[in-house]
Amino acid sequence: MMKYGEIIDHIYQQLLLEKNYGHVAAYIPELATVDSEKFGVCLIDRDNQRHAVGDWQEQFSIQSIIKVVTLSLAYQKLDAQLWQRVGVEPSGTPFNNLSRLEHDFGIPRNPFSNAGAIVVCDVLMELFSDPREVVISMLRTLAADENIHYTQAIAASEKSEGYRNMALAYFMKSMGNIKHDVDDVLDLYFDVCSIGVNCEQLARIFMFLAKHGRSADDLHSYLSRGQAKRINAIMLTCGFYDEAGDFAFRVGLPGKSGVGGGIVAVMPGEFSLAVWSPRLNEKGNSYRGLRFLEHFTDATQQTIF
Amino acid sequence: MMKYGEIIDHIYQQLLLEKNYGHVAAYIPELATVDSEKFGVCLIDRDNQRHAVGDWQEQFSIQSIIKVVTLSLAYQKLDAQLWQRVGVEPSGTPFNNLSRLEHDFGIPRNPFSNAGAIVVCDVLMELFSDPREVVISMLRTLAADENIHYTQAIAASEKSEGYRNMALAYFMKSMGNIKHDVDDVLDLYFDVCSIGVNCEQLARIFMFLAKHGRSADDLHSYLSRGQAKRINAIMLTCGFYDEAGDFAFRVGLPGKSGVGGGIVAVMPGEFSLAVWSPRLNEKGNSYRGLRFLEHFTDATQQTIF
Amino acid sequence: MMKYGEIIDHIYQQLLLEKNYGHVAAYIPELATVDSEKFGVCLIDRDNQRHAVGDWQEQFSIQSIIKVVTLSLAYQKLDAQLWQRVGVEPSGTPFNNLSRLEHDFGIPRNPFSNAGAIVVCDVLMELFSDPREVVISMLRTLAADENIHYTQAIAASEKSEGYRNMALAYFMKSMGNIKHDVDDVLDLYFDVCSIGVNCEQLARIFMFLAKHGRSADDLHSYLSRGQAKRINAIMLTCGFYDEAGDFAFRVGLPGKSGVGGGIVAVMPGEFSLAVWSPRLNEKGNSYRGLRFLEHFTDATQQTIF
Amino acid sequence: MMKYGEIIDHIYQQLLLEKNYGHVAAYIPELATVDSEKFGVCLIDRDNQRHAVGDWQEQFSIQSIIKVVTLSLAYQKLDAQLWQRVGVEPSGTPFNNLSRLEHDFGIPRNPFSNAGAIVVCDVLMELFSDPREVVISMLRTLAADENIHYTQAIAASEKSEGYRNMALAYFMKSMGNIKHDVDDVLDLYFDVCSIGVNCEQLARIFMFLAKHGRSADDLHSYLSRGQAKRINAIMLTCGFYDEAGDFAFRVGLPGKSGVGGGIVAVMPGEFSLAVWSPRLNEKGNSYRGLRFLEHFTDATQQTIF
Repeated sequence: MMKYGEIIDHIYQQLLLEKNYGHVAAYIPELATVDSEKFGVCLIDRDNQRHAVGDWQEQFSIQSIIKVVTLSLAYQKLDAQLWQRVGVEPSGTPFNNLSRLEHDFGIPRNPFSNAGAIVVCDVLMELFSDPREVVISMLRTLAADENIHYTQAIAASEKSEGYRNMALAYFMKSMGNIKHDVDDVLDLYFDVCSIGVNCEQLARIFMFLAKHGRSADDLHSYLSRGQAKRINAIMLTCGFYDEAGDFAFRVGLPGKSGVGGGIVAVMPGEFSLAVWSPRLNEKGNSYRGLRFLEHFTDATQQTIF
Repeated sequence: MMKYGEIIDHIYQQLLLEKNYGHVAAYIPELATVDSEKFGVCLIDRDNQRHAVGDWQEQFSIQSIIKVVTLSLAYQKLDAQLWQRVGVEPSGTPFNNLSRLEHDFGIPRNPFSNAGAIVVCDVLMELFSDPREVVISMLRTLAADENIHYTQAIAASEKSEGYRNMALAYFMKSMGNIKHDVDDVLDLYFDVCSIGVNCEQLARIFMFLAKHGRSADDLHSYLSRGQAKRINAIMLTCGFYDEAGDFAFRVGLPGKSGVGGGIVAVMPGEFSLAVWSPRLNEKGNSYRGLRFLEHFTDATQQTIF
Repeated sequence: MMKYGEIIDHIYQQLLLEKNYGHVAAYIPELATVDSEKFGVCLIDRDNQRHAVGDWQEQFSIQSIIKVVTLSLAYQKLDAQLWQRVGVEPSGTPFNNLSRLEHDFGIPRNPFSNAGAIVVCDVLMELFSDPREVVISMLRTLAADENIHYTQAIAASEKSEGYRNMALAYFMKSMGNIKHDVDDVLDLYFDVCSIGVNCEQLARIFMFLAKHGRSADDLHSYLSRGQAKRINAIMLTCGFYDEAGDFAFRVGLPGKSGVGGGIVAVMPGEFSLAVWSPRLNEKGNSYRGLRFLEHFTDATQQTIF
Repeated sequence: MMKYGEIIDHIYQQLLLEKNYGHVAAYIPELATVDSEKFGVCLIDRDNQRHAVGDWQEQFSIQSIIKVVTLSLAYQKLDAQLWQRVGVEPSGTPFNNLSRLEHDFGIPRNPFSNAGAIVVCDVLMELFSDPREVVISMLRTLAADENIHYTQAIAASEKSEGYRNMALAYFMKSMGNIKHDVDDVLDLYFDVCSIGVNCEQLARIFMFLAKHGRSADDLHSYLSRGQAKRINAIMLTCGFYDEAGDFAFRVGLPGKSGVGGGIVAVMPGEFSLAVWSPRLNEKGNSYRGLRFLEHFTDATQQTIF
């Protein structure tokens, strides 16, 4: 068994000595106020043991990381039918790109682009009468922690500036790939992105993808083994926008980042690992989070490759 | 230990009963003459045991699969310096796309697009006085088989129709990313693509990527563990052109295809697996080869995810 | 003096014998009900004499032709300052293209694309407290006819389906190039497009561009001579979406089309000519209207080239 | 009759007092040696009278301006059939853009892009056994001056650096839109671009487009009236790359520029006007040449609009 605790501590201390680059996401006013030097790590191993360091108990905004959860919910219900409305290919373009979407006639390349995640929200509105409740319940159950909530101030802040996402949604609406009212779909989208989690909660939530679709205690099945494999594959090829190739290359784990500064990565059969550091590089991924994960896989040789 | 032989046999027989779709690559006259119903499989397991079925002893044109070998040679010598001239991101575009290359000022998105592989050939011309000899020697050593050769008829056939690749190369030359004479670089490119291999040779060649950079007999190191991980990562994110996401999603193994109908995939620590079936789907990947690999990973649950 | 009446009659009769191709605009429900075989022509010569034939007294929806009038109003007030928010270059793309707009960071290539015309509406909201009144007054004065009105049913119909224009406007809003509320700007946009005119009114309205910026009776100046030249130039290079080159090539007059089936063209110093026929070709321009104008300039040699 | 001589002199003197911006074309070594402060103007009026000032007798490289002449030769022979291989629409992209060409499957948007002019050269090789002789003869006859020659040093200089044009030509070859050997076609292309002319020669050459297709002395017909109109239309919509709209807007005359610093413009029925000043703006058009023409049309109100 790896001594994850020691390794995590070591890399954590090492990175504190390095200069921290990048900028806290500024386009969402509420996010801009976060302390840029926060830094937390939490790994849950296959025996559900926690190994954590730094600000791992402090909550931050989950942002795009939620896209994996909403996708899993939609995929669980619709299975392959889902792929009629969103693809599984990396896009080679930034997360909010319109040109690619226009080229593809309103079918987003993958569910982790903004457009793709908006389509998934539209799907959830069809599948569930109260999708907000379904999402938050799944998070709480997976984390075994009731203290996970929507953050209205952040959702409101994003809505007030979400013109680009409005443009994406209206374009898809014009192509017939959004069924509900655009305002309603985006309300759901901004709401699920606003959820607050800490590193432990996040790592626990993602254990179902380290455990081939089953809950950490092995009592529940969220996805079939084949579905879990496929979600992990999409994380690997599309989880970091147009830095996905670089993340696969440097880190070599399926993962997903959010502009709140969180990154979560899973080693199937082994662990789930959450890192949080708010400064983002120019691709919108946590600078220090990426550094941490690169060091971690170098040190442990725990990589899918 | 998996009973690979039985599983391979079973899927092979099953696929023979299914309709075989797609078309043999027609744009290279010499390739168009291949019998479209050929079908071979060879898996080399971690103990270097061979499990094979069908036309596994018959040679076919390696085509784009060679790009992994040429990349490994260049990477071995230049390490990270190589990435100044070619990226590691999936492109979201077909293998011979010019627009993407223009958008990126002549730096190919990844080394498995045609443009990227042409740059790698240009690099090999700088690194080695006789790159053809270096490439073929590496293949023969890895396969432990001297019977691997350049196929002049195919190389000549490709050169005579290789206008699109000329366009790619001249564009990169105009941007300063090709150092040698374009004709010379493309001669090397077409030559290495023309090499004939059979399924066993191909599977044995790729064992160094299943063995974290070391030869099957563990005597030689071709790449560091970190380099081998990174090559596997690039195969996963970029190995199947704009079907890379779908391959990761369905199959879940690092792999590479060629228009000769070959596909090779590796499970790090476990096996190397080569399939050959000349009919290609509309994305240019072997139709039956993809089907085989999808069934294989479903049956064995041997996937990196 | 040309015998315009005879020439117009002759071409009109000739085209009635030819098959009429294309389809009435279907995306706006209210427009789809128009009789597809309507066909009217009206030319106003430099002495303000009318030469008309067919359904020239029947009103149709002005649609994109209004973009020339709204542009003239904005240009009259802001002069060159206007070009900070919209360009004067042909786009090489369809009228509702998003990719081009994204490439240009939200600055529309020209004021006759949908995006460009939406920006002009945003400008009019800054310039005038009641822009609807200003627009309709200008039309009535130029046409010397009070019987020109907004058509609420058409505006409402367009708004209910205007998702693509919402996407364009929200994207520009996200880039800072729309100052007002998007819904309000699009309300104005759809309203001005809904105005009903007949061929005579339309031809008379555009006389100010045949008369170098002055009214037909020479009593008022709407634009300086230099400004009128520039508006005519933009009509020539951008007036027919990605068929602008073909229109210049075949017809050789500055002009503007609308999806209501109207086309207006001016020969500076000579005449203003309006044609109406609702069937549109695949580029969205009136099939028979284009045919008429091509025959007309062939017959009269009245072309700016 | 306008006092063209006085007006030209006046603007010429005025511009000498203004700062001269831009850079001499540097990518062709032979062009880079030209004195950047050269400045010549020559207008030929409808009575074939010359009005000239400055360095109007000094020869410079015709470069892209020759594209109008080669197009006229091909159009004269093939008429509308020519448009199967090249379009007449402005491209909205720089002169050497590959993406647009790929999007359009190897059919250049217009004959004044590099790709379009290369196709026209390919056509000339089909039409004439000695196209170089045909081109130079036409120029000498039109100019009534035998002292017009190919400039081998410039052609050789361009060939040695012409990788981008090689890329364009090979791409079109791959799409079937170049029939001859790419090297041969580009040899012709670079040769015709290398021809040396002075302002008077250039203005006289273009009189056939001011005279609706007939020679200045009215004895020969080069193009039908309809064809001359169409060539003028293409000059207006496509003659200045992605500054075509701006040229139409500011100057309002059909014209064509070259990277040698020359610009020629025609007012149909009135005059042909050549300007030469080697400093180019960032779009590749003569800075001072554009300024001159803008002042000239403001002063004379001689514009097609």
